[in-house]
Amino acid sequence: MTRQELINLIRERQSFLCVGLDTDPDKLPAHLKGQPDAVFQFNRAIIDATIDLCVAYKPNLAFYEALGIEGLRQLQLTMRYLHSLGKPAFTIADAKRGDIGNTSERYARAFLGPESDFGFDAMTIAPYMGSDSVTPFTVYPGKWVILLALTSNKGAQDFQLTTDANGTPLYQRVLQASRQWGTDDNMMYVVGATQAEMLADVRRTVPGAFLLVPGVGAQGGSLDQVCRFGINADCGLLVNASRSIIYASQGTDFADAARNEALKLQQQMAQHLKNINL
Amino acid sequence: MTRQELINLIRERQSFLCVGLDTDPDKLPAHLKGQPDAVFQFNRAIIDATIDLCVAYKPNLAFYEALGIEGLRQLQLTMRYLHSLGKPAFTIADAKRGDIGNTSERYARAFLGPESDFGFDAMTIAPYMGSDSVTPFTVYPGKWVILLALTSNKGAQDFQLTTDANGTPLYQRVLQASRQWGTDDNMMYVVGATQAEMLADVRRTVPGAFLLVPGVGAQGGSLDQVCRFGINADCGLLVNASRSIIYASQGTDFADAARNEALKLQQQMAQHLKNINL
Repeated sequence: MTRQELINLIRERQSFLCVGLDTDPDKLPAHLKGQPDAVFQFNRAIIDATIDLCVAYKPNLAFYEALGIEGLRQLQLTMRYLHSLGKPAFTIADAKRGDIGNTSERYARAFLGPESDFGFDAMTIAPYMGSDSVTPFTVYPGKWVILLALTSNKGAQDFQLTTDANGTPLYQRVLQASRQWGTDDNMMYVVGATQAEMLADVRRTVPGAFLLVPGVGAQGGSLDQVCRFGINADCGLLVNASRSIIYASQGTDFADAARNEALKLQQQMAQHLKNINL
Repeated sequence: MTRQELINLIRERQSFLCVGLDTDPDKLPAHLKGQPDAVFQFNRAIIDATIDLCVAYKPNLAFYEALGIEGLRQLQLTMRYLHSLGKPAFTIADAKRGDIGNTSERYARAFLGPESDFGFDAMTIAPYMGSDSVTPFTVYPGKWVILLALTSNKGAQDFQLTTDANGTPLYQRVLQASRQWGTDDNMMYVVGATQAEMLADVRRTVPGAFLLVPGVGAQGGSLDQVCRFGINADCGLLVNASRSIIYASQGTDFADAARNEALKLQQQMAQHLKNINL
């Protein structure tokens, strides 16, 4: 999906919501537990209930890998279903990959390439190994790298905020260096909502880039704060919520409850988009 | 595998060689191409030809994931074969994972846990997200985190060598901080052979830790240099070679050729072990 297509989708659905498909078999509603393809069935119901309210889905690969090869088959079924709907959605493999160049090429092929079992639009990448670990993910047209900059977890403090001799924190060095590796048309950044006040600093370095913002909802981040510091003229945000939507209810009404939670966020987002005339 | 078991294995086989199973279907010998389970057949032949000369195997996950779900099945067959042999080998998932705590727990379960489809002894982890992204990999007894410190690629320069206000490079901060997260019994470090002179600096910070050293062979690192700066009284090294061993020949003699390359390294390693009386 191109940048312009993504912006059009945000305008059309009046939403910049990304639904995180962190599907945990232990948290499925009782009537789905033990069913064949239960994880896929759950994801399909969540997708059906939310696709007109969001613009993106982000399966967290760990939740599927933890189920072994069978888990990846559930992910494949989910992605095939998304591709079959005729309703566009930006799809993100939350994979946090990154390795030496010839290896990153393989990961890019696995998730973004034309022969991928999954056919994602984007994947999250860790920057520790530098340029040649990142650039192989930018080679497929319409596909995206989403580089970790400032994450929403406690451990973000350990290295990302370390300052160099000039007082520049590591996450800013990542933003700066990465401008040589990609463009606003194929590179986004992960910036956690729990660090909302730092979004202003991020925006100074990457004014035009899209930011994937996790941490709203269960992790405690505020949508208003994220928009205050992070929105730009094209919106420039994908705000992810996972647990607060997909586990809104664990009863047979889980999909309706998920829709209600997604709707609340979408309605707030529509107001923020109105403020920027999008 | 415990630290003591690993040291015993190094003594017994007079080797600290790790064979990288970066198996690429395009580089298989002609007689295997297109065969059922060709990747597994190749890996099995490499394992049979090298297991008495090495102490570890390191499948690079990207090469399997690039083949989709079928690739992971080939990896599973390979791991089951290794577990069936009755000859111990330390197994490393070269996966470069790392995410927020609840997600890293899933990755740990996927590769190290008792119900894993693969049952690895260790996996490589990227440190960018800090403490809670790393510690979930240390919870299984006898299982290991191998944390990226200083990698062998060009991009290692971009951030890993960035110095803070005290002149401490990031990779040293990673080494220092990680001493709070694990011990020499469950944490190793990746230090590239192409940065051999820096192994002395690494050793000052983590004198007792095992180091996984990629980059000998195809990437140009020197075994003598690695030992000069990196060996300790328990050996403390796993030196990985991938392409130089597994693709030593692309003919029907590929396994014999792999054995010859592994033997050359093992003989050099035996000499280095003799020097430390191991």
